[in-house]
Amino acid sequence: MLKELKAKNAPEEEIATVKKQLEEVKKHLWKGTSVGSAGKEKKGAQITLKTPKGTKDYNEREMHLRERVIGTITGIFKKYGGVPIDTPVFELKEILTGKYGEDSKLIYDLEDQGGEKCALRYDLTVPFARYLAANGIANIKRYHVAKVYRRDQPAMTKGRMREFYQCDFDIAGQYDVMIPDAEIVAVLKEVLTALDIGEFLIKMNHRKILDGIFAVCGVPEEKIRTISSAIDKLDKQSWEDVKKEMVVDKGLDEIIADKIGTYVRRKGGPELVDSLLEDSELTSNKRLKEGLEEMKKFFEYSKVYGTQDRVSFDLSLARGLDYYTGIIYEAVLIDDAPVPTAPKNSKDEEAQTRIGSVAAGGRYDELVGMFASSSKGKVPCVGISFGIERIFAILMSKYEQSKLRPNHTQVFVMSMSDGLLLERIEIANLLRQNNISAEFTFKTKPRMTAQYEFCDKNLIPLAVIIGKDEISRGVVKIKAMSKEAAAAAQTKNEGDEVKVSDLVAEISRRLCL
Amino acid sequence: MLKELKAKNAPEEEIATVKKQLEEVKKHLWKGTSVGSAGKEKKGAQITLKTPKGTKDYNEREMHLRERVIGTITGIFKKYGGVPIDTPVFELKEILTGKYGEDSKLIYDLEDQGGEKCALRYDLTVPFARYLAANGIANIKRYHVAKVYRRDQPAMTKGRMREFYQCDFDIAGQYDVMIPDAEIVAVLKEVLTALDIGEFLIKMNHRKILDGIFAVCGVPEEKIRTISSAIDKLDKQSWEDVKKEMVVDKGLDEIIADKIGTYVRRKGGPELVDSLLEDSELTSNKRLKEGLEEMKKFFEYSKVYGTQDRVSFDLSLARGLDYYTGIIYEAVLIDDAPVPTAPKNSKDEEAQTRIGSVAAGGRYDELVGMFASSSKGKVPCVGISFGIERIFAILMSKYEQSKLRPNHTQVFVMSMSDGLLLERIEIANLLRQNNISAEFTFKTKPRMTAQYEFCDKNLIPLAVIIGKDEISRGVVKIKAMSKEAAAAAQTKNEGDEVKVSDLVAEISRRLCL
Repeated sequence: MLKELKAKNAPEEEIATVKKQLEEVKKHLWKGTSVGSAGKEKKGAQITLKTPKGTKDYNEREMHLRERVIGTITGIFKKYGGVPIDTPVFELKEILTGKYGEDSKLIYDLEDQGGEKCALRYDLTVPFARYLAANGIANIKRYHVAKVYRRDQPAMTKGRMREFYQCDFDIAGQYDVMIPDAEIVAVLKEVLTALDIGEFLIKMNHRKILDGIFAVCGVPEEKIRTISSAIDKLDKQSWEDVKKEMVVDKGLDEIIADKIGTYVRRKGGPELVDSLLEDSELTSNKRLKEGLEEMKKFFEYSKVYGTQDRVSFDLSLARGLDYYTGIIYEAVLIDDAPVPTAPKNSKDEEAQTRIGSVAAGGRYDELVGMFASSSKGKVPCVGISFGIERIFAILMSKYEQSKLRPNHTQVFVMSMSDGLLLERIEIANLLRQNNISAEFTFKTKPRMTAQYEFCDKNLIPLAVIIGKDEISRGVVKIKAMSKEAAAAAQTKNEGDEVKVSDLVAEISRRLCL
Repeated sequence: MLKELKAKNAPEEEIATVKKQLEEVKKHLWKGTSVGSAGKEKKGAQITLKTPKGTKDYNEREMHLRERVIGTITGIFKKYGGVPIDTPVFELKEILTGKYGEDSKLIYDLEDQGGEKCALRYDLTVPFARYLAANGIANIKRYHVAKVYRRDQPAMTKGRMREFYQCDFDIAGQYDVMIPDAEIVAVLKEVLTALDIGEFLIKMNHRKILDGIFAVCGVPEEKIRTISSAIDKLDKQSWEDVKKEMVVDKGLDEIIADKIGTYVRRKGGPELVDSLLEDSELTSNKRLKEGLEEMKKFFEYSKVYGTQDRVSFDLSLARGLDYYTGIIYEAVLIDDAPVPTAPKNSKDEEAQTRIGSVAAGGRYDELVGMFASSSKGKVPCVGISFGIERIFAILMSKYEQSKLRPNHTQVFVMSMSDGLLLERIEIANLLRQNNISAEFTFKTKPRMTAQYEFCDKNLIPLAVIIGKDEISRGVVKIKAMSKEAAAAAQTKNEGDEVKVSDLVAEISRRLCL
C-alpha cells in the first residue's frame, strides 16, 4: 500500500496517514486479544492491557468450539483404548536439553529465583518420554491435550502462536512391527474425518528408507541431516530449487543430487514399495530393505483398517525432529484432488493444492531410553500430534457463519412489571433443581426490553414470564423465543399459561429433555 | 517414630535404619511423580527424572477423577448461565504487579530472553479483570478452570502445590445489591453438594462490616490490615493467642483488642445481623451500617435460594486478599456437627472439627477499574474459587477404594490360537465404526493368558474370541469378563457363538448402549 502511494508520488501527508493507520492495525494484530477492540486502548491508561506477544485470550464462542473439537478428538482416542495423563507445564531444564536440536533456542526458561532451573514444555512428547521413564511404564496408549510454548516469531494469521494447544496420542510398548503404527494412522483418519475439515491426505515415509537412499546415493554421513532438511522442502519448492540448495549452498556433488532426485520425487501406494523392493541397488542396503519391508507390512494392515485410500507413500517427506527412528507421517488438507500421485514440478501448482499440515507424527524408539540408564528402560513409541490451532482456525470461520449459542441457558425468567425478584429467583431455582439451565436479570425492577434483549442476544429458546396477578393464581406464562422453540410448542399457543406445578414437565417437553 | 525409638533407648543401628527409611519416604514425597516407584531412581541415570518441586504428573486414574469432577462443576456453572473463557498461562509482569501484596514474591517470572517481561499467572482473578478491561466487557458470567502457579513452600500431603488447578466462577456487571452475590453462594452450595465430599459450612463476612468494627473499636488506620490478618486466624487459634498477637506483637491497645473481641467472636444467622443493627454504636458508622444492611438483604435472598441452612455469618472471617470490597466467604468441611454457633475456645477442639477450606471468594468492585483509565471502566465483580486440589485429594481416597476403570474400553478382541491378527483388526474396526470402544493385542501371535490378563487388569467387560474354525463359519464367541457383563448376558450362555453380522447388535444389547 505504501509502495503504491510512493510510486504514485502521493503527497507526504497522505503517506504519513496511511503509515499511521498501518501501524495501528499492526498494533491490534500484536495485541493478541481476541474480542472486539472497544475499550482496548483507552487513552491515558497506565498499563498495557494486551496479552504477551504470540498469546491470546479465548472468548466464550471460541471456547465453545474448542471444547467441542477436543471432545470429538478425545472421544475417538478413548474408543481406541486411549487414557489421558497430565504433566506439569514446566519441566526441569535438563529434561528438555538436547532434544530439539536447533530449536532449543525457542524454549522459554523460567527465571532463576533460587532452586531448580525450569523451562516451559516445548511439546508433549519429551514430557511423555520423561513420564514413562520416571514411572517405569512399559506400555500405555496415552493421550494428552495441553498447551505448549515456543519463543518463535508469531504469525497469528497463519495460526502460529507462542502459546498453543497440542493434542497428542501415542502408543508405547514392545509390540510386533507396524501394528501400533497402523492403528495410529487409523486414529488419524477417523479424527480428521469426524472433524469434517475437508479432504486430506496422509503423507508417509520411513526414516530407514530415507537414510538408506542417502547412503545408496553416496551422501556423506555428515551431510545427511542438512540434505534431509532440503529434501523436506519439496512440498513447497520445485526440484530445481531444492537441487540448487543441495549443490550450491550445501556443497553436494551434482551427480549425487541427481541420483537422489530419481528417488525422492516419487510417491504412491503399495505398488511403489514393491517397485522399490525390486531395485537391487536399494535392497543391498540392509536398513533400506528393512524400511521397505516395514512399509509393505504397513500397507497390508492399512488395507484392513481401511486407511489405504488416504495414505500416500511420499519419499520426499523428511520431518525435522531428530528423534524419529521409523515411520513418519504428516496429514495435509487438499483442496479437491484426491491422492495426488504426479510429481510436483511447479511452485504455483503446489501452492494451489496445499493448505497445510494439520497433524504429524512418527515412530521414536530411542527417546524414552535417553532418560533411562539400562536397556530395560527402552520403550518403543509411535504417536500423532494434531495441530489443533489450525483445525480451530478452519472450523472457526465455518462456525462464525452459523448462529451458534454462546451459553447453554435454556430458560430466561422475566417479570412483566413490579420486579418480582423473589418470585423470579424462586422459579429459576425450581428449574435449576430439575436440571434445566435458567437465568434472570440481577435487578429488582428490570426493564422488559432489557430482558428481551438478553434473550435475543444469547439466543435463549424459552422465556417464563411472571406477573403479579398470574403468580397469585399459581400460574406463569411460557413464551417461545426462537423459531425452533415455537415449533416445539405444538399444542400450546404462545404466551399460554401453565401451572407452576406443571412448569418443569411442560418445559422439559418443549426442550425435548 | 524416631522419638519413640529414642525414648525406648533403641540401639543406634535401629534408629539409623528408620532414619534412612524416613528419608527415603521423604524423597519420594518430594519427587512429585505420582505412579509407583518402580524405575524411578535407576542407579547411574544421568538425568534426574523428577518433576520440578511442587509439581506432579497425573496418571490415567487421577485424570479420570479430575475430568469427572471438573465435568460436574462446569455442568453446574453452565446451568447458571456461565460461559468458559481462557487466558494465557503467563501475563505481562506489570499486569500482576501490585495485586497480591506480600504474596507477590511468590510469582514465577519468566527469564528475560529479550522482549517483554512475563510471569506465570498467580490466580485466575487478576487475568479475568485484565480480560474484562482489555476487551471492554461490562458484564459476563464466566468460568475458568486452569492451572495457576505460586513459588510457595509446597506441602504435598496437605495438597499445597506450586502448580495447581483453580476453578473459578465470577459474575461481572452493574447489578442491584446482593443479587449476584446470593447467586454465587447458590452455585457454591450446589457444587459442594453435587461433589458429595461431606458436610460443609459457608462462613461469610463483609469487608465493610469488618472495617467498620475496626473503626468503631478505634484501631488506628495503619494497623487495620495487620489486625485483620490476626483476626482471620481465629479459626485456627484461640482468642487468647490472637489477642496476644494483636497486643504484644502488633502493639494494639489492650482495651481496643478486648472491644474487638466482643464482636469478632460472634457468629450466626440473620438474627445476628438484626442484633448488630440494633447496636447504635455500630450503626453510627456509615460503612458498617451499609454492610449490615447488605448482609440483611443477602439473607433475604439466601432464604429463597435455599442456601440459608449452609451459611454462617462469621465476624472473624477476614481473608487475606486486598482487592475484596464487599461480601467475603469461605466454604469449610466439617466432620459431623452442622452449623457450629458456639465460640471456639480451644485449639484442639478446632483442629478436630475443621478439615479445611474447599472454596473461597468475595466481591471485588475495584479490581477491573485498576486496569481502566476512566470510571466507565469500573466493572463490579463477585466470584468464587474452588480449591479443587483439596477436593481431588478427598475424592481420590474414596475413589481408590472402589474399583473404577482406568480406560473406557468395552470390548477386547482376542484370538484363541493362530494369531489371526488381520481378523482381530477387522472385528475391532467393525466395533469402533459402530461407536463401541475396542482393543486387541498388538502382536501377530499373542498368548491367550496375556490377553486375559489385559482384560482383568483393565476391567474390560466383554471379550470377543476369534477362532479359525469359527471365522470360516462367519461366527465369533462373546464372553462376559465381569460379573456385571455376565448378568447382562441374560438369555445367552457364556462363550455363545454370535454371527459376525449380529455382533454389533448383540454387544450393544449387552452393554445397554
